[in-house]
Amino acid sequence: DPKLKVFTCNSNPALAKEIVDHIGLPMGNAQVVHFSDGEVQIKLNESVRGADVFVIQSTCAPVNEHVMELLVMVDALKRASAKSINVVMPYYGYARQDRKARARDPITAKLVANLIETAGAHRVITMDLHATQIQGFFDIPVDHLLGVPILAKHFIEKKLEDIVVVSPDHGGVTRARKLAERLEAPIAIIDKRRPEPNVAEVMNIVGNIEGRTAIIIDDIIDTAGTITLAANALMEAGAKAVYACCTHPVLSGPAIERIQNSSIKELIVTNTIPLGSEKQIDKIKVLSVAPIIGEAIIRVHEELSVSKLFD
Amino acid sequence: DPKLKVFTCNSNPALAKEIVDHIGLPMGNAQVVHFSDGEVQIKLNESVRGADVFVIQSTCAPVNEHVMELLVMVDALKRASAKSINVVMPYYGYARQDRKARARDPITAKLVANLIETAGAHRVITMDLHATQIQGFFDIPVDHLLGVPILAKHFIEKKLEDIVVVSPDHGGVTRARKLAERLEAPIAIIDKRRPEPNVAEVMNIVGNIEGRTAIIIDDIIDTAGTITLAANALMEAGAKAVYACCTHPVLSGPAIERIQNSSIKELIVTNTIPLGSEKQIDKIKVLSVAPIIGEAIIRVHEELSVSKLFD
Ligand SMILES: Nc1ncnc2c1ncn2[C@@H]1O[C@H](COP(=O)(O)O)[C@@H](O)[C@H]1O
Ligand SMILES: Nc1ncnc2c1ncn2[C@@H]1O[C@H](COP(=O)(O)O)[C@@H](O)[C@H]1O
Repeated sequence: DPKLKVFTCNSNPALAKEIVDHIGLPMGNAQVVHFSDGEVQIKLNESVRGADVFVIQSTCAPVNEHVMELLVMVDALKRASAKSINVVMPYYGYARQDRKARARDPITAKLVANLIETAGAHRVITMDLHATQIQGFFDIPVDHLLGVPILAKHFIEKKLEDIVVVSPDHGGVTRARKLAERLEAPIAIIDKRRPEPNVAEVMNIVGNIEGRTAIIIDDIIDTAGTITLAANALMEAGAKAVYACCTHPVLSGPAIERIQNSSIKELIVTNTIPLGSEKQIDKIKVLSVAPIIGEAIIRVHEELSVSKLFD
Repeated sequence: DPKLKVFTCNSNPALAKEIVDHIGLPMGNAQVVHFSDGEVQIKLNESVRGADVFVIQSTCAPVNEHVMELLVMVDALKRASAKSINVVMPYYGYARQDRKARARDPITAKLVANLIETAGAHRVITMDLHATQIQGFFDIPVDHLLGVPILAKHFIEKKLEDIVVVSPDHGGVTRARKLAERLEAPIAIIDKRRPEPNVAEVMNIVGNIEGRTAIIIDDIIDTAGTITLAANALMEAGAKAVYACCTHPVLSGPAIERIQNSSIKELIVTNTIPLGSEKQIDKIKVLSVAPIIGEAIIRVHEELSVSKLFD
C-alpha cells in the first residue's frame, strides 16, 4: 500500500531497518540531523501527504535528545499533511516517574504523553510500559505489546527443566505469572525488606527454589542492582542455576560490571534499546522485537484503511 | 514578599544568581539532576504552594537537555501547587525554525511554545525573539524584553564618533534603527545578493560608510559567518573601524576562530547565554541582562499581586 510509510529517528536505526524489512517496505526517506548549535533539523525528503505514517523511536539514552527528535519529527509530519501519525516507541523512557513517589515529584510519564500528543501524534505503539496505567495518560489510542511471548519462546527452545519463574519485587508478579504460564512453571517472589531503618535490605524468597532453575523476569534492567542481588540470593537459597530476562536493557552505570560479576548464567533481553558495543558481553543474548512490532504496524494500518470506508 | 519564588535550571546559573541578587531574594531551593540513565530528576526542596514562581532557563546548547529540564521543572511546580508558573527564558532556542522555509520543514519555534504551555506555564518572559511573531505562537502572556538599551548604553559610554549602525540583513533593519536612534546615528544595510546561481554572494552596502565607525547589530550570532564577512566588507568600503553586537551569543562551530580572524574590533554580547571558557576571548565583552530581567520579574509579580485583589 503506497499510503503506508515508516520513518525512523536516530535512537534505534537497526531495529527500524528490521521492522521495515519484516513489513516489506523501503525505509521512509528522511534524516534527523543537527544544526551547528545542536538544534534538531529534520529533512523529510519525500511527500507524506495523505499517508498513514509510522515513526520509530525509542526514548532511551540520550533520552532528552531522543524525545526532542521525536517531537520535532512529529511536528514536521503534521505540517506536511500526513493523514495519521503513529508513534512507535519500542522503549518508552521517563516511565518510572509515573506517580508522585515523593512530595513535589514531577510525573514525567504523563508529561511525555502530553508532549507527544501536543506535537500531533494520533496513536502510540509501545512495549511493556513500566506501569500499564501509563496507557491512561494518553487521550489517543495506545497499542501495548508484550515481550513475554518472545522471552518465553527462547526459554522453551532451551528445554530447561525444573524451572521456577521469579519476580524480583511485588510489582512484577503479574509479568512473572504470564511467563510462568507459558513455561508451565511455578513462580516465586523476592520480598525485599529492611528489618530496621539504616540496616541493609534482606532478600526473603517466597516460593520453592531448591534444586530448580530460576528465571528472573523484569520489564527494565537499569543499574542491575536488584537483579544481581536477587540472583545471588537465589543461588544461596539452593537454586541450580539463575537466568534473568527483561524487555528493556537500559543497563546504565555499573550494570555491565554487576552482571558480569553476578551468578546470573545468561541474561536475555530484547532490542527495544540498542546495546552499545561496550555492553555486548557473552552473557547477554538479544532477541528481536521486529516481527511483533512489524505485525502491529500492519494490523494498525489495516485498521486505519478499513475505518476509511466509514469516513 | 514570601509568595515570590525564583528557581533556576542548569543552563545559566550565573545569570540566575545575578537576577535573584538584583531582586534581593534567596535562590529557590531546588536541584535539577539526572538519574543514572540520564533522565532528568527534579529535587524541589521547598514548598511552592500558592507562590508566584519564576523559573530561569535559557534553551541554549545542549538545547534538548535544557528544554526537557525546563519542562520537567514546570511539571513539578504545577503538581506542587504553585499559584503561577512564570518561565523566564533569556534565550529562546529553536526560534529560527519559525516558518516553513522549505517544504516539509517543522516549525520548532511553535512546537516549543506548545510544549511549554502543555507542561503548565502561565507566562513567559523572554528577550529579543528571533521573530516577534513568536509571541503569537503562545496563548499565554509573553513579556518581550529588548537588549538594545543595554547595548546602546555601552556604546554611548564609549563616546565613539561618526557612528553608523549596520544591519547585516533586511530582517534586522528595525533592530538597527532602534540602536541608531539611541546613538543618534544613521543606519546602513548589507544587501547580500547572489548575482547568478552557484556564484558567491556579493555584499552590497546600502548607506554611507566611508570614514565612519560601523556598529553591526544582530539578535543572534551563531557561526559568525554573516557578521565577519559583513565586517570585512565594511572595512573594504572604507569604514574607520567595525564593532559588532548581539543579544544572544550562540557562537557555535567556527564562530570564535572567525571572530578572532575578522576585522571586528570588539564584539559586545549579553549574558543570556553563558560563554564557555573556550569562548572567553579578549575581543568579546559581555554585558549583563540581570537588571532588566530582575525588574521584569518584580513588575510581573506586582501585577500578579494586584490582580489578586480582583480575583
Ligand atoms: N530514570 C530513573 N532511574 C532511576 N530511578 C527512577 C527513574 N525514574 C524514576 N525513578 C524512581 O524509581 C521509583 C519508581 O520505581 P518503581 O517503584 O519500580 O515503579 C520512583 O521512586 C522514582 O523516583
Ligand atoms: N539552529 C539553527 N541553526 C542554523 N540555521 C537554522 C537554525 N534553525 C533554523 N535555521 C535556518 O535558518 C533560516 C532562518 O533564518 P532567518 O532567515 O535568519 O530567520 C531557515 O532557513 C532555517 O531553516
